[in-house]
Amino acid sequence: MKHNSVMQTLHWDESILLALKEDIPWEDVSANSVVPAGLRGRAELICKQDGVIAGLPVFARTFELLDASAEVAFFAEEGSEVKKGQKLGEVTAEMRALLSGERTALNFLGRMSGIATYTRSVAKLLEGTNTALLDTRKTTPGLRSFEKYAVRVGGGRNHRFNLSDGVLLKDNHIGAAGSVRKAIEGARAYAPFVRKIEVEVETVAQLEEALDAGADIVMLDNMPPEILEQAVKLAKGRAETEISGNVTKENIERYVSYGVDYVSSGALTHSAPALDLSLKNLRPLS
Amino acid sequence: MKHNSVMQTLHWDESILLALKEDIPWEDVSANSVVPAGLRGRAELICKQDGVIAGLPVFARTFELLDASAEVAFFAEEGSEVKKGQKLGEVTAEMRALLSGERTALNFLGRMSGIATYTRSVAKLLEGTNTALLDTRKTTPGLRSFEKYAVRVGGGRNHRFNLSDGVLLKDNHIGAAGSVRKAIEGARAYAPFVRKIEVEVETVAQLEEALDAGADIVMLDNMPPEILEQAVKLAKGRAETEISGNVTKENIERYVSYGVDYVSSGALTHSAPALDLSLKNLRPLS
Amino acid sequence: MKHNSVMQTLHWDESILLALKEDIPWEDVSANSVVPAGLRGRAELICKQDGVIAGLPVFARTFELLDASAEVAFFAEEGSEVKKGQKLGEVTAEMRALLSGERTALNFLGRMSGIATYTRSVAKLLEGTNTALLDTRKTTPGLRSFEKYAVRVGGGRNHRFNLSDGVLLKDNHIGAAGSVRKAIEGARAYAPFVRKIEVEVETVAQLEEALDAGADIVMLDNMPPEILEQAVKLAKGRAETEISGNVTKENIERYVSYGVDYVSSGALTHSAPALDLSLKNLRPLS
Amino acid sequence: MKHNSVMQTLHWDESILLALKEDIPWEDVSANSVVPAGLRGRAELICKQDGVIAGLPVFARTFELLDASAEVAFFAEEGSEVKKGQKLGEVTAEMRALLSGERTALNFLGRMSGIATYTRSVAKLLEGTNTALLDTRKTTPGLRSFEKYAVRVGGGRNHRFNLSDGVLLKDNHIGAAGSVRKAIEGARAYAPFVRKIEVEVETVAQLEEALDAGADIVMLDNMPPEILEQAVKLAKGRAETEISGNVTKENIERYVSYGVDYVSSGALTHSAPALDLSLKNLRPLS
Amino acid sequence: MKHNSVMQTLHWDESILLALKEDIPWEDVSANSVVPAGLRGRAELICKQDGVIAGLPVFARTFELLDASAEVAFFAEEGSEVKKGQKLGEVTAEMRALLSGERTALNFLGRMSGIATYTRSVAKLLEGTNTALLDTRKTTPGLRSFEKYAVRVGGGRNHRFNLSDGVLLKDNHIGAAGSVRKAIEGARAYAPFVRKIEVEVETVAQLEEALDAGADIVMLDNMPPEILEQAVKLAKGRAETEISGNVTKENIERYVSYGVDYVSSGALTHSAPALDLSLKNLRPLS
Amino acid sequence: MKHNSVMQTLHWDESILLALKEDIPWEDVSANSVVPAGLRGRAELICKQDGVIAGLPVFARTFELLDASAEVAFFAEEGSEVKKGQKLGEVTAEMRALLSGERTALNFLGRMSGIATYTRSVAKLLEGTNTALLDTRKTTPGLRSFEKYAVRVGGGRNHRFNLSDGVLLKDNHIGAAGSVRKAIEGARAYAPFVRKIEVEVETVAQLEEALDAGADIVMLDNMPPEILEQAVKLAKGRAETEISGNVTKENIERYVSYGVDYVSSGALTHSAPALDLSLKNLRPLS
Repeated sequence: MKHNSVMQTLHWDESILLALKEDIPWEDVSANSVVPAGLRGRAELICKQDGVIAGLPVFARTFELLDASAEVAFFAEEGSEVKKGQKLGEVTAEMRALLSGERTALNFLGRMSGIATYTRSVAKLLEGTNTALLDTRKTTPGLRSFEKYAVRVGGGRNHRFNLSDGVLLKDNHIGAAGSVRKAIEGARAYAPFVRKIEVEVETVAQLEEALDAGADIVMLDNMPPEILEQAVKLAKGRAETEISGNVTKENIERYVSYGVDYVSSGALTHSAPALDLSLKNLRPLS
Repeated sequence: MKHNSVMQTLHWDESILLALKEDIPWEDVSANSVVPAGLRGRAELICKQDGVIAGLPVFARTFELLDASAEVAFFAEEGSEVKKGQKLGEVTAEMRALLSGERTALNFLGRMSGIATYTRSVAKLLEGTNTALLDTRKTTPGLRSFEKYAVRVGGGRNHRFNLSDGVLLKDNHIGAAGSVRKAIEGARAYAPFVRKIEVEVETVAQLEEALDAGADIVMLDNMPPEILEQAVKLAKGRAETEISGNVTKENIERYVSYGVDYVSSGALTHSAPALDLSLKNLRPLS
Repeated sequence: MKHNSVMQTLHWDESILLALKEDIPWEDVSANSVVPAGLRGRAELICKQDGVIAGLPVFARTFELLDASAEVAFFAEEGSEVKKGQKLGEVTAEMRALLSGERTALNFLGRMSGIATYTRSVAKLLEGTNTALLDTRKTTPGLRSFEKYAVRVGGGRNHRFNLSDGVLLKDNHIGAAGSVRKAIEGARAYAPFVRKIEVEVETVAQLEEALDAGADIVMLDNMPPEILEQAVKLAKGRAETEISGNVTKENIERYVSYGVDYVSSGALTHSAPALDLSLKNLRPLS
Repeated sequence: MKHNSVMQTLHWDESILLALKEDIPWEDVSANSVVPAGLRGRAELICKQDGVIAGLPVFARTFELLDASAEVAFFAEEGSEVKKGQKLGEVTAEMRALLSGERTALNFLGRMSGIATYTRSVAKLLEGTNTALLDTRKTTPGLRSFEKYAVRVGGGRNHRFNLSDGVLLKDNHIGAAGSVRKAIEGARAYAPFVRKIEVEVETVAQLEEALDAGADIVMLDNMPPEILEQAVKLAKGRAETEISGNVTKENIERYVSYGVDYVSSGALTHSAPALDLSLKNLRPLS
Repeated sequence: MKHNSVMQTLHWDESILLALKEDIPWEDVSANSVVPAGLRGRAELICKQDGVIAGLPVFARTFELLDASAEVAFFAEEGSEVKKGQKLGEVTAEMRALLSGERTALNFLGRMSGIATYTRSVAKLLEGTNTALLDTRKTTPGLRSFEKYAVRVGGGRNHRFNLSDGVLLKDNHIGAAGSVRKAIEGARAYAPFVRKIEVEVETVAQLEEALDAGADIVMLDNMPPEILEQAVKLAKGRAETEISGNVTKENIERYVSYGVDYVSSGALTHSAPALDLSLKNLRPLS
Repeated sequence: MKHNSVMQTLHWDESILLALKEDIPWEDVSANSVVPAGLRGRAELICKQDGVIAGLPVFARTFELLDASAEVAFFAEEGSEVKKGQKLGEVTAEMRALLSGERTALNFLGRMSGIATYTRSVAKLLEGTNTALLDTRKTTPGLRSFEKYAVRVGGGRNHRFNLSDGVLLKDNHIGAAGSVRKAIEGARAYAPFVRKIEVEVETVAQLEEALDAGADIVMLDNMPPEILEQAVKLAKGRAETEISGNVTKENIERYVSYGVDYVSSGALTHSAPALDLSLKNLRPLS
């Protein structure tokens, strides 16, 4: 997975700068008290926990934005599995920039790696199957592009990015429209024609109505196992199928056995614990 | 804990709007396909998991920003313990605003309540002791004010907000300054005089140097239990003491027995799982 | 077509404010020289040319943003055909706000109505057929949401909004990927699964490759008429078809006769002349 | 006409970035699906219609903002007449940046060149006369500086930029002030003394009042031809004269024969069709 | 002088919000420690020094932006002379908003009133003469519109607002152009025709060149008194005259005796001491 | 005092750009009329008044932001005493950037140097004593970080930056809390534990209450000399002491004789006249 410099330039830089300003609304009084301006130094990025690393370009960019002459070398690839104690990289920059950027850089990297680590653990359960793992819109406000990227690094795939670029008709939409069919017809008439239309259905009757009305994707919600199995079969060849919800080793295996196309999980982004990482051994370069 | 309307106006509204724009960069094609403009409706906020609720003003404000005529009623107090299945509130607004704001409002509320819930569980271990629980700067980039607020709702206290408003001299600062004493003297000369000066020490010798140099707070880092106990005693009456790191029932109890003033934990904000909440039973008001 | 208040709040207000600041970087020296603060007045919105009106909510909002007490009444419906000399509305507000907002409000309304007018004239050629009219991304920088909305008001449909929410693989993408098939496979692997995949093809061989690879939409580019007809037949039932380019009465009729699904035209947004509108008869309210 | 780097830095870069974000709110899924990060390529800017080229610095800057290492070479001068099929330039950059920036760069260039082309065609009618062509404030919201620049490239001159930097007293202002004289006196008392004062007059009596009151410029509005001729003569030597409105070959020649100083036309900016331009022959550089 | 609500809305609100965020980057910990949310109170605006009051709308707006229900009553008119000890107004709002907004509101009001006070003292020296007092662009970065407004309140007039809306050709411009005449011709060809052209001249020869070339305004720089007198006579009837520089009672009287049109002074905005004002007697409303 | 590049990058650049946009909302019509694009030149920074120079990095940065290739050389150190006529530096850049940036660069430098000059004059009265000079929050809206930095350059120290990073309980807070003790206890319970707590007291009784309640700093307000002396003695060793208010040679000496720790003065930032500086001898580089 290569670095996406256009997205970095247009979007990520802005978020990183906001985060730096949040942490340094004025100046870093600790660093500036003890380190003279202009003195360069070097520090090491150390992994303190096993996991999957994600966000290295963001980590590097944090220091580059504070100090245009910063140089960052990595000894692990984005998306690789890393081990406790492993030295992942080395940052050379003004010492003040190193001290001032450390926490922000690690806050991004730890969160993104935490998501990638958890996603990888779930994605492994699906390896070799025809079922793919999806994220949701249950992301941290303001960080969606970082988190959806981390899901991809971890081996998941992205569901829609936002309310504008995908149609998903849930019970509330169906209720408002009057029926599954009417909701689908409304969306087909209103939404840009390049949108796929996904519908959430709770019964086999609703599923059949959705398939007849030409839904592109059906989300099978809240169905008992035996109904679920039947529903997936019914939809096969007519629409893609998605199951959403809590993911456990047990239910994942069952879903795969039904042949469902996608399993989506909000926990990938809203509840993955951060990966523990640290910037160590800061030393001046004479 | 009352609502802070000045902070809401100056800071939170902006973050909420950014989150809404992230989720609705254009328009909500699903909602607008099936719901006519102008139609008002009502929905219920339901708790799907036991926990501590935090962020109700943010939840309400999300809908108010989308629809100035939105009305939100809550049936639980900010900071109270809530139960699975409990109805926490009711939102009345344009149905389009309800559908378009739902995910953003819940993303804030779920994350903040997750932090409050986890913080409360740790804070309870400290009840009746003289040791207080602190957060850290290991917060989500861009959301620090929401998360530090949630820590307070959960029963924790706030450490410094950022690098500008507190002095904390760590090993890297001490190395750069030359000694603990020199670091403290540098900070006293440079930082605004209203800042307390905190120093991280790793040995009893460093601790004594810090106390002699007039540190206001000492963070005892990485010390073996028996040294830790001795260090806390040594500092008593001369500086406040803080221990940072992984918090378990066992080590918390030990720290308390030493009489340490503060225990800080990054996990409160970087690894608390979100609380599961839902907006249900949307219905039009005729 | 109802007013979309969520999009207005999250996006349009910001653009309108930018436009007002562009026209009033300081203060309106003409208005402020001759009109006392606080004096309210009323003016009429007059149509000076036949056309289709689009942008009335934007026109109204311009005055509301300058003067929260502004009241705007319209005597024509958004999207209706209007006649030279027709009185379309009446604005009551502080006279300074009326004078200061006039040009900005008319610049939006004239441009949007110009697009709706031209779109309607083309869309009429397609009435009663199975071919729909689409816009493109050839919009005015910064005004895409206003212009795509105006296209819909005029009777056209929207193609993708931007590079993030739709996949369209053109010759350059195909060249980079190596083949039509490889481009499609790359997109299917990389893009969120809710994206439809559209491919631009120039020959029947490319078309067959695209259909085999599972393209959702094919854009038939630069084909001679007889090939075009054959191509549309070939794709029927397997993918949707789009023809893009200059639209004339002649070629539109021919395209319809082939049964193509969509005709897209950049001219709808990049070359429609503005509709002539005017704010007249300003008078003080005593 | 040389490149104005200060305006570019302070204003144009911001507008270009907004336009890029509008078109790439997330990432360019098509480009990123098929082109690896880091691969550089080259493409050609081709003219598809005869016209006057304007906006080359903006075109170049679009790619430079996406890829700091982009290099753009032009084979035509800003403001020169270009021919269908002519190769105007060559862009070398990361292929992803080329694909992602193409539409935005062309949208600016096409619009600005369209304005320059139309302006040139009108300005030619005035060559060798003492009458100059002016633009108006009927510009696209948000793009005024680009469009007024394009008018200059095309051979027109700029009227005031905005409501703050020029005084123009129209019928509404005169009505509010009570008389032409009072309006002028009000403006002279209120506006910064470096502002010229322009007044719109509809009768010879108003004109005489304006001249007596010391107007710097008079706009002759809505006068029959014979009155117009008389009015221009009357004002000669006492104030500059301007006629505004629809410009045709016939009326322009008549206005020139009267010796009017300025003819202004809103159509230059609000109704000029875009010039057709294309980025072709993208190829990787190995 | 009435309140300019359009400028307030488009520009001043933004500056006031920035200032509030500068003073309250997080929350007001003092106020929030001791005052419960929601409690309303009232406080008095007291003058602690004789002077001219300017900025009352800005003072009021500061509280309104923090608390939409704030009510501000004034007992003195904008621009009136106020006395030490005088009660100028009363603010009723949430007590937290009163405490949090106090310093920002007073910082604006004190600075603006200081400028008005100093301007009034100089303007009085010119009363009954034909010479007017002008400000310059030597204003506080970011506050120009507030300060130029305060100059007007104090009885001065505004010179150009900025580099875009007025032409002033100084020695450096003349040097670059080659001669006074060439500089003027360059400006007449390049600048919008509504701009007056002002030239700075240092000798009588330069002055004559400027007048011949049609300068609208001449700034007489650095001339000995007898030359200055001659220069003003020479220009009379052909161009307006301006003298810039340090203003003392003595030189002002001399300039007036020469009949110069304008005297400009940078000190009005860059060196006027703030007027001392205070918010007192805060009390809760039960 | 070295240059703080992190604060420059995160905060000062933004303020400088805002100031440049304020002065150049469009383009610099004077410069662009007479100077061709691309021509480089050089100019000298000359001191026109004795003082202390502060803001050289801001001065330099202004030109660098307008022209990335600008080079600025200084012949005086930040904070040094400079003399009328002294050449302080030389700027080499595009001539248009030199002309366009001159006023903004000087407006910053003149204001900051004015503050440093006045602060130095007061700080000298305290040399060799144990009393330090402090600034206040009475700064120019939007420029606090520049002004507090200038105070430090002048030899003063900074009080709290804002309402979030320091606790200062004044009469209004004490009134709201009910007593000095209750206010202090409220702050200790609410504010982050790293905040020192300062209380304003007006009587010896209040002082004793504050000391008993553990105030870190006491501000002695409005006390007669003999009480003041007693109060300082009483607080010695228990809390730091601060006196605020008008600073004269006489009262400063008296305060020092009492042994007060800090004297704070709002006049340092709100009433220091700007230092007169000029950019001269602009010449093209061939």
